[in-house]
Amino acid sequence: MNCAAVLDAIRDAGTARVTELVRATGLSRPTVSAAVSTLMADGWVEETEAPDIDLPRMGRPARVLRFRADARYVLGIDVGPHKIYCAVADLSGTVVSRVRRDVTEASTQAGLLDHVQATMREVLDAVPVPSSALAAVGLGTPGIVDERRGAVVQAPSVPGWSSLELGSLLRRSVECPVHVENDVNLAVMAERWNGAGGDADNLILVQWGARVGAAVLVQGQLHRGAHGAAGEIGFVELEEEPQGVQADGLGPLESAVGTAWMLRRARSLGDDESPDAAAVLTAAADGDPRARRVVDEACARLARGLASFVSAIDPELVIIGGGVALAGDAILDGIRRHLTRRALVVPRLELSRLGDDAVALGAVRLALADAERRLLDVYTVPTP
Amino acid sequence: MNCAAVLDAIRDAGTARVTELVRATGLSRPTVSAAVSTLMADGWVEETEAPDIDLPRMGRPARVLRFRADARYVLGIDVGPHKIYCAVADLSGTVVSRVRRDVTEASTQAGLLDHVQATMREVLDAVPVPSSALAAVGLGTPGIVDERRGAVVQAPSVPGWSSLELGSLLRRSVECPVHVENDVNLAVMAERWNGAGGDADNLILVQWGARVGAAVLVQGQLHRGAHGAAGEIGFVELEEEPQGVQADGLGPLESAVGTAWMLRRARSLGDDESPDAAAVLTAAADGDPRARRVVDEACARLARGLASFVSAIDPELVIIGGGVALAGDAILDGIRRHLTRRALVVPRLELSRLGDDAVALGAVRLALADAERRLLDVYTVPTP
Repeated sequence: MNCAAVLDAIRDAGTARVTELVRATGLSRPTVSAAVSTLMADGWVEETEAPDIDLPRMGRPARVLRFRADARYVLGIDVGPHKIYCAVADLSGTVVSRVRRDVTEASTQAGLLDHVQATMREVLDAVPVPSSALAAVGLGTPGIVDERRGAVVQAPSVPGWSSLELGSLLRRSVECPVHVENDVNLAVMAERWNGAGGDADNLILVQWGARVGAAVLVQGQLHRGAHGAAGEIGFVELEEEPQGVQADGLGPLESAVGTAWMLRRARSLGDDESPDAAAVLTAAADGDPRARRVVDEACARLARGLASFVSAIDPELVIIGGGVALAGDAILDGIRRHLTRRALVVPRLELSRLGDDAVALGAVRLALADAERRLLDVYTVPTP
Repeated sequence: MNCAAVLDAIRDAGTARVTELVRATGLSRPTVSAAVSTLMADGWVEETEAPDIDLPRMGRPARVLRFRADARYVLGIDVGPHKIYCAVADLSGTVVSRVRRDVTEASTQAGLLDHVQATMREVLDAVPVPSSALAAVGLGTPGIVDERRGAVVQAPSVPGWSSLELGSLLRRSVECPVHVENDVNLAVMAERWNGAGGDADNLILVQWGARVGAAVLVQGQLHRGAHGAAGEIGFVELEEEPQGVQADGLGPLESAVGTAWMLRRARSLGDDESPDAAAVLTAAADGDPRARRVVDEACARLARGLASFVSAIDPELVIIGGGVALAGDAILDGIRRHLTRRALVVPRLELSRLGDDAVALGAVRLALADAERRLLDVYTVPTP
């Protein structure tokens, strides 16, 4: 218990003298000193020189203690059907290594896992610590995830992904706990932690690219829903006659607004030059009238689905992430205009600040939460 | 502090002997006895005979203490554009008096308040205690409510209701706190407390009659949303071209599925006999094919809006309340069938068990929560 309190105080302060720890914890000086000795022996705390901002003193420098954020690392993995993105962070959440790999071929489950493991090796090789220093792994994947089992239970938009036991499979490669979560759920955690989420307690993140997903934060907490399916906006049915899952695996709404639709719509309006949807989105950001029209039509369609989500949840903020963020304010303005015609109360709208990093950073956050829980538990649980 | 602990123990037990209170609280016998004396002097606890289930004993009967649930009362009020329903309950939540008054004429704000005050007087006159025993008032009203101010800030479906300062106006008639909340929010609290909600932590209540509203419970807590507008399903826009608020003040969805639409649709199918929508709903419950068709079409329309709410929130349970419950399983079956075609995961569906009482009971619950908080505060806050 004392070690946990002293460790918390050191982490809160950054660096601290024993005198400051006595004040912060309310413990006696001998108790603090004993706790510091234990924490140093266990490798969580080190002695260091006082920071430069201290006034110069006579005699030997004071003993300053620092949390060893690099004593362990966590790994966050964003596994999508077309990319694998790994990020390694220390216990302060600072990313020290990242590797992104595009997966272009049609991936079998076995082929995909080979890619994941190769990317993991690559990103961990860049970190100057043994694999035993890896404290936890977080992994984000499309689909509805049973996070207790670490398995994808339903992923209509990614053929072959359903009933993928990602957690069990990865646990064979590492010696630490592996946690699996829906990718957009992780992205919203990252936005709240370090992105556009700020202090909004009720927010919706719409991740809008080839696919469209959403994640919901209620009272500052991730809202998974009763079956882990909260926020599946890509599968919302807007029409009187339900459309169902499309031939390409996309849900009705994502099929109607995703980047594939945007490129097709640009072509139908006579755009023969843009090589891909990214070019259309960038042209919209630059003010090209035809690209603007495509983006506006897409925003009108998205707002039709999003308005119901906004009516159900009444968030203070909606963050737009994913590929469409390339269009910048054209996306925000379009959504705002069409939402205003459809919702009783229109929330604040912002673009994601984390872009492509959001899912991997959320996975890092998930792994960190687990690592910290177990790290502190060592000192909180009474020894038998 | 000791009084609060002893009072809690007596309320938990129903009736209790001092010996049992010593065991339940961990306090000493003299401390418990002193607390009991204080609570009896303040009127919260009374001595009573041991209940019949006790074995007969020799000598004088043991001293059994009972919480005086009738020491104070709370008042719950359901104020709608067409009715006022008042319920008085004691501190155990048992309703001891109720009065319902239909309001048929077009109500001005002043006329409405006259009706509310007359109904309050009538319901309180039936209770054999002075008005000073009224501990708190809860009031439910349609529209978006600023519950801190006790005011309706937006009520598109009830003309003249917006910016109604119900809380301030009522506080002139009573000497206790008045709390105002959206009516459907109160109904969902009542369902969770004493109705079909049971132990569902994530649930949506759809109140479906002339108007359609919804309320959302997330992790067992009422979810108001950032602007108090969560769950406004009646104003969901389904069509590509937004419909806006209709001439009769109804939102687009409630206009397309409400009881007024049902009666019109029955007429258009040749039903010249049903005097009102209630008759159509009852006929559907009895298996009349034409009435069944009306109900099924209404369910298809409602499911179109509800499916988005279900996708956003992923509840384990959806409760259907309001006038349409007259159609019984025909309503549940219709919604389930159409929802299955539109939602990735279909929640459990149940009819409200509280019917017309739901809002007033939720208002009682709101008032009780406040009364209990202040009642216990007396014993928790240190005296100066």
